[in-house]
Amino acid sequence: MEHRLWGGRFAEPTAETMRRFNDSFRFDVRLVTVDIAGSIAWAGALEQAGLISTEECETLVQGLELVRREFADGSFEPKEGDEDVHTAVERRLHELVGAAALKLHTGRSRNDQVATDMRLFAIGVARQIGERLMALQLALLDQAEAHAATLMPGYTHLQRAQPITFGHWCLAYLEMFERDRQRIEDAIARARTLPLGAGALAGNSLGVERERLTEALDEFDEVAGNSLDAVADRDYLAELHFAFALSGVHLSRLAEDLIIYSSTEFGFVELADAYSTGSSLMPQKKNPDSMELLRGKSGRLIGNLVALLTVLKGLPMTYNKDMQEDKEGFFDSFDTLDLALEVAAAAVATMRARPERMLAALDDAMLATDLADELVRHGVAFREAHSKVGRLVRRALELNLSLRELPLAEYQAVHPELDSNIYACFDFARSVARKESSGGTAPQRVLEQCARWRGEKR
Amino acid sequence: MEHRLWGGRFAEPTAETMRRFNDSFRFDVRLVTVDIAGSIAWAGALEQAGLISTEECETLVQGLELVRREFADGSFEPKEGDEDVHTAVERRLHELVGAAALKLHTGRSRNDQVATDMRLFAIGVARQIGERLMALQLALLDQAEAHAATLMPGYTHLQRAQPITFGHWCLAYLEMFERDRQRIEDAIARARTLPLGAGALAGNSLGVERERLTEALDEFDEVAGNSLDAVADRDYLAELHFAFALSGVHLSRLAEDLIIYSSTEFGFVELADAYSTGSSLMPQKKNPDSMELLRGKSGRLIGNLVALLTVLKGLPMTYNKDMQEDKEGFFDSFDTLDLALEVAAAAVATMRARPERMLAALDDAMLATDLADELVRHGVAFREAHSKVGRLVRRALELNLSLRELPLAEYQAVHPELDSNIYACFDFARSVARKESSGGTAPQRVLEQCARWRGEKR
Amino acid sequence: MEHRLWGGRFAEPTAETMRRFNDSFRFDVRLVTVDIAGSIAWAGALEQAGLISTEECETLVQGLELVRREFADGSFEPKEGDEDVHTAVERRLHELVGAAALKLHTGRSRNDQVATDMRLFAIGVARQIGERLMALQLALLDQAEAHAATLMPGYTHLQRAQPITFGHWCLAYLEMFERDRQRIEDAIARARTLPLGAGALAGNSLGVERERLTEALDEFDEVAGNSLDAVADRDYLAELHFAFALSGVHLSRLAEDLIIYSSTEFGFVELADAYSTGSSLMPQKKNPDSMELLRGKSGRLIGNLVALLTVLKGLPMTYNKDMQEDKEGFFDSFDTLDLALEVAAAAVATMRARPERMLAALDDAMLATDLADELVRHGVAFREAHSKVGRLVRRALELNLSLRELPLAEYQAVHPELDSNIYACFDFARSVARKESSGGTAPQRVLEQCARWRGEKR
Amino acid sequence: MEHRLWGGRFAEPTAETMRRFNDSFRFDVRLVTVDIAGSIAWAGALEQAGLISTEECETLVQGLELVRREFADGSFEPKEGDEDVHTAVERRLHELVGAAALKLHTGRSRNDQVATDMRLFAIGVARQIGERLMALQLALLDQAEAHAATLMPGYTHLQRAQPITFGHWCLAYLEMFERDRQRIEDAIARARTLPLGAGALAGNSLGVERERLTEALDEFDEVAGNSLDAVADRDYLAELHFAFALSGVHLSRLAEDLIIYSSTEFGFVELADAYSTGSSLMPQKKNPDSMELLRGKSGRLIGNLVALLTVLKGLPMTYNKDMQEDKEGFFDSFDTLDLALEVAAAAVATMRARPERMLAALDDAMLATDLADELVRHGVAFREAHSKVGRLVRRALELNLSLRELPLAEYQAVHPELDSNIYACFDFARSVARKESSGGTAPQRVLEQCARWRGEKR
Repeated sequence: MEHRLWGGRFAEPTAETMRRFNDSFRFDVRLVTVDIAGSIAWAGALEQAGLISTEECETLVQGLELVRREFADGSFEPKEGDEDVHTAVERRLHELVGAAALKLHTGRSRNDQVATDMRLFAIGVARQIGERLMALQLALLDQAEAHAATLMPGYTHLQRAQPITFGHWCLAYLEMFERDRQRIEDAIARARTLPLGAGALAGNSLGVERERLTEALDEFDEVAGNSLDAVADRDYLAELHFAFALSGVHLSRLAEDLIIYSSTEFGFVELADAYSTGSSLMPQKKNPDSMELLRGKSGRLIGNLVALLTVLKGLPMTYNKDMQEDKEGFFDSFDTLDLALEVAAAAVATMRARPERMLAALDDAMLATDLADELVRHGVAFREAHSKVGRLVRRALELNLSLRELPLAEYQAVHPELDSNIYACFDFARSVARKESSGGTAPQRVLEQCARWRGEKR
Repeated sequence: MEHRLWGGRFAEPTAETMRRFNDSFRFDVRLVTVDIAGSIAWAGALEQAGLISTEECETLVQGLELVRREFADGSFEPKEGDEDVHTAVERRLHELVGAAALKLHTGRSRNDQVATDMRLFAIGVARQIGERLMALQLALLDQAEAHAATLMPGYTHLQRAQPITFGHWCLAYLEMFERDRQRIEDAIARARTLPLGAGALAGNSLGVERERLTEALDEFDEVAGNSLDAVADRDYLAELHFAFALSGVHLSRLAEDLIIYSSTEFGFVELADAYSTGSSLMPQKKNPDSMELLRGKSGRLIGNLVALLTVLKGLPMTYNKDMQEDKEGFFDSFDTLDLALEVAAAAVATMRARPERMLAALDDAMLATDLADELVRHGVAFREAHSKVGRLVRRALELNLSLRELPLAEYQAVHPELDSNIYACFDFARSVARKESSGGTAPQRVLEQCARWRGEKR
Repeated sequence: MEHRLWGGRFAEPTAETMRRFNDSFRFDVRLVTVDIAGSIAWAGALEQAGLISTEECETLVQGLELVRREFADGSFEPKEGDEDVHTAVERRLHELVGAAALKLHTGRSRNDQVATDMRLFAIGVARQIGERLMALQLALLDQAEAHAATLMPGYTHLQRAQPITFGHWCLAYLEMFERDRQRIEDAIARARTLPLGAGALAGNSLGVERERLTEALDEFDEVAGNSLDAVADRDYLAELHFAFALSGVHLSRLAEDLIIYSSTEFGFVELADAYSTGSSLMPQKKNPDSMELLRGKSGRLIGNLVALLTVLKGLPMTYNKDMQEDKEGFFDSFDTLDLALEVAAAAVATMRARPERMLAALDDAMLATDLADELVRHGVAFREAHSKVGRLVRRALELNLSLRELPLAEYQAVHPELDSNIYACFDFARSVARKESSGGTAPQRVLEQCARWRGEKR
Repeated sequence: MEHRLWGGRFAEPTAETMRRFNDSFRFDVRLVTVDIAGSIAWAGALEQAGLISTEECETLVQGLELVRREFADGSFEPKEGDEDVHTAVERRLHELVGAAALKLHTGRSRNDQVATDMRLFAIGVARQIGERLMALQLALLDQAEAHAATLMPGYTHLQRAQPITFGHWCLAYLEMFERDRQRIEDAIARARTLPLGAGALAGNSLGVERERLTEALDEFDEVAGNSLDAVADRDYLAELHFAFALSGVHLSRLAEDLIIYSSTEFGFVELADAYSTGSSLMPQKKNPDSMELLRGKSGRLIGNLVALLTVLKGLPMTYNKDMQEDKEGFFDSFDTLDLALEVAAAAVATMRARPERMLAALDDAMLATDLADELVRHGVAFREAHSKVGRLVRRALELNLSLRELPLAEYQAVHPELDSNIYACFDFARSVARKESSGGTAPQRVLEQCARWRGEKR
């Protein structure tokens, strides 16, 4: 057997530079397990089609298991000419089992083979990301339950807006990561279409029954309906890239919040030493490096998505070698997000909220909307109430007083009917407790949401 | 009513430059219909909560309908100070119905309002894109049925690979656009979560029942579970951007194929004059401009996706003004894809296949795999068969003969058992007919797939 | 004259959908001034080549000036069939001056024409951006001079690191925008290569001397050396897109700093009311919307860059219609950055630093490096000094004291030679004054830098 | 010496997961040579400032040289705790030279250290890319000289437009890669600003003279003027990323052309076997894999650019750990482009033009513009000439004749003055020779351009 799987027609050897440019074994070796799983299934299909004998099939399966073990225990030795993992496995199989190996590729092309491998790999790692997301959600849920009633300022525009609870803040991220999990599940469902048996592009003429392959490879639940599309489709990777990138964006938002909250000026949370680092020059520093890296990793997740879309843009049918560029970026995005989520979960689990600092950051102006709502309850139209309270806020600024310190006369100046009961508004806990419509920050609502999540995540 | 919805606290007016930078009426006026729908539902909720009377509610609803009509018939006159569509509608409502208008914004913030508007808008346009995709699929299906058995070269690496049928080629794109449709449906399902009632960020304290809002706004099937997330979430836009971008990539591939196939050298298809243009300098030119623009539009679809992800990266909770940047890009991507799909469907429907040119481009070397399969049927292991045929191909090149012209002696030189029956392989129709496993290019399989699609699209 | 510039060969009219897809007059009308400038130069070249008479040339020039005025005063009336600005101008010219207009396009193609137009446009707007950058630099410089000695905390990892001055912070941004200006100048220099006379792709065969065109169009200083490249090149746009995007990233960093510094928790600066906005629900809010929008605009600047690179990726030679997609994104990026820089300059000029809040945020731990430096001056190796001070920091945390409050015994516990002089380190102004090596934050250095910038910007 | 450079203040150890997330030695080990060069210069500066003795300085320099050799010969053994290359070098230095090593980091921070390292690295690899571009240009120049007069069809819209020469096509790409080289040179010039001595952010207080550092590190020609910017600036990387990405786009265009020209249908060039590969299933295939990979690599080059811009977007001053994400992407882009250019040069040098196929693809319609020019020489206004020739083209299509076969009567029908001399237009070589204005495809012009390039590249 010539070592290259395709050399018969060629007069000259491949240039060494070209080999470095073209060969993918260096990175596609990660596909070895799924490649062998696909080959075992294919051997079974060849037997069913009468293209190899039962003995040959058994020989192939045992040989492939042997190759798998060599990779697993590190004893596999690559040789020059192993241009990709498929060639390497088949070369080694031939060394181990002899002539039967020459029949394994019957009716199969690397085009449908690698398309199958990548789907198997992608489905597996997508599931793992789903589990990582779940673990992060559980860490957030623990914090949410512990702090369902812990008062803190809620921000819009990074300006203090209204009081909320820290638990409510935690649950906001739970929602985001839940959507990420759903997107990944949708992507997995769409990835479960089997390309194997599509040949190089036109289909199979040797009587292989593709439907039976989906039984052997139970990650798949249907057969690709068009052989050209089967070898040319990388949608499932683009879709996972996107889901990973958006999850990375969510992590960047979580990280941004926690970086700001970890600043001395805010001081709402303290990350564990285990997820912080120091400075080589400034001995006092404790830096939220874990969060900064989480924030930064969104860059490469988005970049890898762009890379794949750019590769696919304008490609003619069907398979083109450009598509080999689908792998390294996907491996990188998976590795990146996998570790990022692990770190995020641990950092969230070990961070310490500082309720006293959160409370200290609440100020009366954050109750301005409560004041306006109170005026509404007095029958003032909302727009007028908003405007009246705006004037009170400005008046307080002028007098250098907090709203609560503003004399009753000032209140009555904007709305004569008011009496001293208006000061009852200046109660942060009451403000929060009143946000009791569905989805609101009232502790009771937060606890209900926690209970719902706890039920779903059990 | 002061015209700005928020001026009470401010001493200085907004700078004119800032107004140009900040104001969004210029583009968010597209939301007017959904904004009014949302406000009508909100008025109903205020009434249910006892915050306005039934008469006030009726006044508001009638007034809002009037404003809607003014926008619809072009009689609406924007005024200075209409910083966004929400302000403009409320300002006009106040002019039309007086004091009741001042109560409409009770318990509502522009944060939850605009989040609701954009979801309503996005759901609507996503459905329209779904229909455009369907129309393009039907145009491809018509061509596929007409050409289920029309022989043409199938390409990998833009090199002639194996014979396929033009119908099979059409169906490959049907598969892609089907996945696009599914992705959009998944995105719509996730978008159907109602932010209204989340207030600025913390929820609602005036007793509005958010669940009843989903009855009034039946595009939504559930209420957002966390008020912070409700106003901060733009995932549904990112997800649609991605689905649109990937659809654009599919269009770019279709376009690339048709540009190449329209070249004089290939000559497989001719676009209608109606979807081609000429040259201002070269009178003979007929250029596939429709396809080139389709190919190029993928750029802005991807660019707009990147833009939104970049905007969201690293944003702290909850609403930040950066998010106003979610609109123009989404409008542009929708408009772009909407028209692109319309053009694609019409250009595909009116293009003329040229079967005689396709047939002329088939050459014997494309049957090399069929020869190898034949050797496999003679009991040769596939790897050996592939290598033997490789040598035949090279021999034919050396002798400047086609494979079919190569004397039998040459065949027997690589495999002595061969006899003149081997020449029966040189039949393109037979080659195609044999690709009869599921998903293959055999005309029978193509027709079955057409029938399946026809059933689904009926 | 048929209205389409290219219809002779076509039997069918262009479809209405295709016209909407293809026509660019809607946006390329912005090129009208440069298009007419190019045409006037071209008319001169035709005359020099003897292809039109002097009278015809004068007629054309006067007619073109007339068309220019019609566009300028708004009296130009577009007609159906004005597919792009070039067609519109030539159509109107023909109406105004008759037969001579039919000679204007001699030897010219829209390919070289539009390439010339876009370069002229791009050079002009790039210069304008350069001036906007300068204005922003001057606003920063004013603040830097005013606050050369205003103490504030310097941050790394958003943790207080070492004392710096607010003037030094301002100058950091001056450096960034200076690099932006240089990049734009480099891009302009490369854009000044004239495509006109390259014809559709192959060059000119009617004896037009292209070198003389660079005299008429003095934005250009040389002639494109290869006609194929001349019509296919959009590098200068990509380069400007990149320069604009990176400038946008710098604005996003400036904005992020000022958003954080405007928070109540930091409180280092207060934006003018004129560059802030309020809330429709929360009367107390003053939001740094100008800065948030500045931060967000980086998204579309990056997105537009990606869009153009994607369009160009994989395009075959030479001109392809995909390239029409070069315009809208570039117009958008220019408009976006132009206004963003104007707002940034005004917001920086009008913001108010709050030195008392900056000073209050300085804490002793920020002098830890100064302590370590002091130990170095006592002969302690830096690594040991760093470690010793680290232990002091930890000890102070344990005792809940500031470093300055830590008793001398604690200092002597880590380094026995220390005496009470060590407490002299606790002087923020001294710390800053000592950073006097080149580029340091010492007020003297800051003022020298200010003087240097003032000299350059004069 | 504690192994972590910053541990004194910390009570808990770093979590193992965090270490994997945070540690950069795995990839930043590539900086070892430049890191040591920077440290040697720094030791010299410390000596000049009197912070270490001459002996200590010599010890450090010798020790650093030793560490460099250990890395060079592979004998360096990383230890747990070597979180980055800086720590590893300093740890090993300490083992080798003892106490003096503890002084090396005096007044230096990893912030200015790594900023210096990356600039040194970036300048070096950018120069190497410049040389690779030059080699590719020379390969194109050789082909251009050999084929200055080789006729081929020139394309716009992938439709045959006008005859050009293959040499002219080669020179178009020379122009593109020349701009790439210039952009890289501009980027290098801007990168030559030294951050070292900026400390962590605020500058240096120990009397180090930064200007003398630029003598020791002659890659730099000036000192960064602002210490905050010095440690926060990654513009030079973004700029190189962009230059690399645009170069990648140029390669993708070259590749697209050569893929199309290598198709059987065009057949204008044949790539060497050494830069092609075959098929595992289809023995006859010869695939232009080198070109497809070149086309695809543009994806990751653009993706890496986007990644860095995304990382930098919205980062507050000054150094943030997110910036550690600047390295892997840059290394990847350099490695990718470096090898891609090497392959491109070799593939261009070894490809074989097929002039007979190019000639066969020329058809009379490509001379339509020459016909129109001829009519212009007869005094017909260009627009009319264009229209008349358009009608001739359509007439020829109707009669199924080539333009040359069209009887004289048809010519006279559109322009009565024509006589049989018109048929002299049908000469491709004459057509090309007439494109003799500057930059045109006339062989004489092509040879002049070749001579110019040959002069510049000598």
